[in-house]
Amino acid sequence: MSELIIWTYDWVPEGPRGFVRDLRLRWACEEAGLAYAVRTVPFEDRGAEHFARQPFGQVPFLTDGDVELFESGAGLIHLARKSEKLMARDPAGEAQTLQWTIAALNSIEMVTVPWWFFEVTGSQNDNLTKWAQSRLGHVESILKTRDYLAADRFTVADLLMADVLRVEKLRAFGERPATEAYVARITGRLGFKKAHADQMAHFAAADKKRT
Amino acid sequence: MSELIIWTYDWVPEGPRGFVRDLRLRWACEEAGLAYAVRTVPFEDRGAEHFARQPFGQVPFLTDGDVELFESGAGLIHLARKSEKLMARDPAGEAQTLQWTIAALNSIEMVTVPWWFFEVTGSQNDNLTKWAQSRLGHVESILKTRDYLAADRFTVADLLMADVLRVEKLRAFGERPATEAYVARITGRLGFKKAHADQMAHFAAADKKRT
Repeated sequence: MSELIIWTYDWVPEGPRGFVRDLRLRWACEEAGLAYAVRTVPFEDRGAEHFARQPFGQVPFLTDGDVELFESGAGLIHLARKSEKLMARDPAGEAQTLQWTIAALNSIEMVTVPWWFFEVTGSQNDNLTKWAQSRLGHVESILKTRDYLAADRFTVADLLMADVLRVEKLRAFGERPATEAYVARITGRLGFKKAHADQMAHFAAADKKRT
Repeated sequence: MSELIIWTYDWVPEGPRGFVRDLRLRWACEEAGLAYAVRTVPFEDRGAEHFARQPFGQVPFLTDGDVELFESGAGLIHLARKSEKLMARDPAGEAQTLQWTIAALNSIEMVTVPWWFFEVTGSQNDNLTKWAQSRLGHVESILKTRDYLAADRFTVADLLMADVLRVEKLRAFGERPATEAYVARITGRLGFKKAHADQMAHFAAADKKRT
């Protein structure tokens, strides 16, 4: 049996803790009941070896026996194929899970990550905020009608969308009650809580080693 | 046998012609030799029926018998599972194809589409340009070492990455010879040429109907 290994940084500053994307893969493994180990690469010195495994110098990447993947979205789809707990197995349910997973990455994060980038670099832009508002408004319309994005059940698409939407500042402009309830419901799952606590403990332990 | 239907707009203005994302699905079907039909939804009046099928009011979406998907990236992954011509079938080759498909959507388009958005709204931002340059630089480093992104062969990941990178303005800042050669090589394929010509003819025929 192949061993799943989730690779993340050995340490990060306070700011991104709780949001480093290894959390997505930890959470998926927790939901699916898949055994996994966590290993690290240096945060501060990202050398050729790191770029050979993750061409943008980021984390996470995932090892599954002989197979290695970067991109958290790709890791999630890979894990979803291993466990029905993460994705329905009928063709329509699988297609819905896939489309909403990609929507979280390419229709929502494509706007919200740049929005966040502009926010932290202090150069926010009205057009970008309007664009983000429009996209989040469409998501709100959907979430008014259902508890889960795909196949009337929790899937990896909810895991990803809730992770994208749980950035509080992003939800601070505009009233979206269905989205608020959705984020609370999905991140209220034991799998998220375990993954989040484990990531926080991982980086806290790294602080101790450094002092 | 189920029939593949690619849904696009009935008409668009000159600007986006040749870039509307139904092209990605047409191209994939051409490469795979999959039969498909093209049907349309109104560009100008996007009603509830459209939003029920594509929650962001965009195109394309794909019908495959009883299954329907929106998001061009999801459509590409769906088609790649139907044909080995679009994705290697060994686990490592499949993982590589998946990771580079997601990288095109979530590491490259996440920066280049906002860059384009700022470009056309006349509010370009230096930090965003630097971010885009950095990401495109990492892609150049990879393309210096290989002809195809995944599994030493053409896959749907190349189709998508080349489609993302073929926006000329985006490539105008910085020298990236390997990327230039890659885009020329991948968009030089018959499948791209057919898909592109068909989309241009589709919208040109719509002009005639309107006059």
